Amino acid sequence: MKFSFEEHSHRRFNPFTGSYVQVSPHRSKRPWQGQQEKIVKSEPVTYDPECFLCPGNTRVGGEVNPDYTSTFVFTNDFGALTQDIPSGSYEDGDFFKAKSERGICKVICFSPDHSKTIPQLSQNEVFEVVKTWRKEYMELSELDFINYVQIFENKGEVMGCSNPHPHGQIWAQESIPDEPLKKQQRFLDYYQSKGKNMVTEYVQAELVKKERIIYENDSFVVLVPFWAVWPFETMIAPKNHIQCLAKMSDTQMADLADAYRTLTIKYDRLFDVSFPYSAGIHQAPTDGKDHPEWDLHMVFYPPLLRSASVKKFMVGYEMLANPQRDLTAEKAAGVLRDL
Amino acid sequence: MKFSFEEHSHRRFNPFTGSYVQVSPHRSKRPWQGQQEKIVKSEPVTYDPECFLCPGNTRVGGEVNPDYTSTFVFTNDFGALTQDIPSGSYEDGDFFKAKSERGICKVICFSPDHSKTIPQLSQNEVFEVVKTWRKEYMELSELDFINYVQIFENKGEVMGCSNPHPHGQIWAQESIPDEPLKKQQRFLDYYQSKGKNMVTEYVQAELVKKERIIYENDSFVVLVPFWAVWPFETMIAPKNHIQCLAKMSDTQMADLADAYRTLTIKYDRLFDVSFPYSAGIHQAPTDGKDHPEWDLHMVFYPPLLRSASVKKFMVGYEMLANPQRDLTAEKAAGVLRDL
Ligand SMILES: O=P(O)(O)O[C@H]1O[C@H](CO)[C@@H](O)[C@H](O)[C@H]1O
Ligand SMILES: O=P(O)(O)O[C@H]1O[C@H](CO)[C@@H](O)[C@H](O)[C@H]1O
Repeated sequence: MKFSFEEHSHRRFNPFTGSYVQVSPHRSKRPWQGQQEKIVKSEPVTYDPECFLCPGNTRVGGEVNPDYTSTFVFTNDFGALTQDIPSGSYEDGDFFKAKSERGICKVICFSPDHSKTIPQLSQNEVFEVVKTWRKEYMELSELDFINYVQIFENKGEVMGCSNPHPHGQIWAQESIPDEPLKKQQRFLDYYQSKGKNMVTEYVQAELVKKERIIYENDSFVVLVPFWAVWPFETMIAPKNHIQCLAKMSDTQMADLADAYRTLTIKYDRLFDVSFPYSAGIHQAPTDGKDHPEWDLHMVFYPPLLRSASVKKFMVGYEMLANPQRDLTAEKAAGVLRDL
Repeated sequence: MKFSFEEHSHRRFNPFTGSYVQVSPHRSKRPWQGQQEKIVKSEPVTYDPECFLCPGNTRVGGEVNPDYTSTFVFTNDFGALTQDIPSGSYEDGDFFKAKSERGICKVICFSPDHSKTIPQLSQNEVFEVVKTWRKEYMELSELDFINYVQIFENKGEVMGCSNPHPHGQIWAQESIPDEPLKKQQRFLDYYQSKGKNMVTEYVQAELVKKERIIYENDSFVVLVPFWAVWPFETMIAPKNHIQCLAKMSDTQMADLADAYRTLTIKYDRLFDVSFPYSAGIHQAPTDGKDHPEWDLHMVFYPPLLRSASVKKFMVGYEMLANPQRDLTAEKAAGVLRDL
């Protein structure tokens, strides 16, 4: 018997973060008796008078949204990070270390239309979303105390999204958070030892292998990373060096919009449901340093595993030991490519 | 205005793993409009003819459970890790690294009674569970290819537990998984530089401060770690050096059972519901090395935040950047202590 990825339990290494994933392909046959998600297939309305994000409505904080017609950005009324705190730190022995953290939390409405999600917007509308991200990234990076800008989207109730109105968020802050910091350290090591960028080198290697590529256009590929953790986890990554949103041309922004839209259209087709996920962009920190080692890339972490109602639970072993998956990255890529 | 833990956004450092948590205490007032969990308050039966774990029943794999009267252990019929695979590894350039992973997955039924959970078992019954863990840990550690034994429990549908019959799991394997490996590296550094054990030093420091202690007996304390991530995350940790289950006396095992039971009774009272969580034990690897740096401790990651039906979603920012919490560790400890 020869060891095979498709059949035998193995661990894969993630060179972007230095972590591992346990892959158990033989386990796909396991019966599922656990919790099923409820499938909400309501006919959404284009305007909801109760929605905090619809044009013209009053938000929780009391402010009134303008009658916006494209994207609309505002500061989160209940931001986890705020600007107006005193700075301070606390250190007591080896075990009690804390530091104040200033930041800004924003909400980006993707469209005035309450009923739409990214895959239902036009190419031009998604291009406007990307342009809005870019504008926000650039404005926030001007602020001295903002050293990292995390752009993300939680989609679907199962991902803790409390409002179906199409929107994403930005949390910008003093520190570089754990995930991008891990990547930064590894990208920098690679850049210093090889004089090359890890992200684009990886993309080029995947373009040769082809088996994990889902889609490509002139500037970006959509792929399932070799070390994917979530069943249908994907990444949109550039073919050539793009450090951050600020450095993108109009063509590249249009290509990112196209990749984002195409991927989410495929996702919606996968289980014939508005596909939930958390997605976001990792890119160069805004700490005033150079960061030639960074390439912007967007990651998608969807929870669904087998159908619209059966999700992958990252619990128990995963929380205590190591992420684990049954479906191989290659199989997931094949399914998404063919849709 | 002075910086205060109770009011202002801050980051806390986790010395056990080297990671951070973003704490946003001001955000506890945020209204919640998102997904609510359904509350299942059925009258459970002591025996369920459909249950794969009840005594005398036939399992998915076809085997028949004995008429057990205390705990009962068997090899998982759909284990993510198996023994009978060929070993092999794959390495192609910088990005494609994988290795076969042998292991054993077991299921431990805590009681023949389908309707009971840990907080509903007697002290003596929970003591039997701890003794079973010990026996399994010792037997598995005898196997040459088993270098780490992860004991854990997923409780509740919301934690992906597919069967309410009281049970836990053991996944034992060749590699040391990411989470215990991070701890191992940091415990070892600490041990080598200070000649002391990080876990027991931390416990002693918390016993002085008192504000995060929930419960204690002769051998163990139950506390909310300073760097807790989940709203009501807790840790059961020893007052004095206990490397692993194999090194525990009967008194220490009884004290662990008492702490486990007392904590879960408090948890059930918190929101008046059978409280869901993932819990597990981190302890010395079984790789044949000495590991004086390790102390066994048990961690609890419960998802509930505000009530039986509102959970904390670790999504978006948390997946992409950093874990985040609203409630401070001190507040959570106070609530649990007073129950
Ligand atoms: O083994 P179970 O209970 O069927 O499955 C549960 O626990 C496992 C180990 O934590 C997870 O990998 C699964 O996602 C979860 O549903
Ligand atoms: O900001 P929202 O959409 O209210 O809240 C959601 O996203 C946040 C950022 O990922 C998380 O911290 C919350 O747990 C989640 O419910």
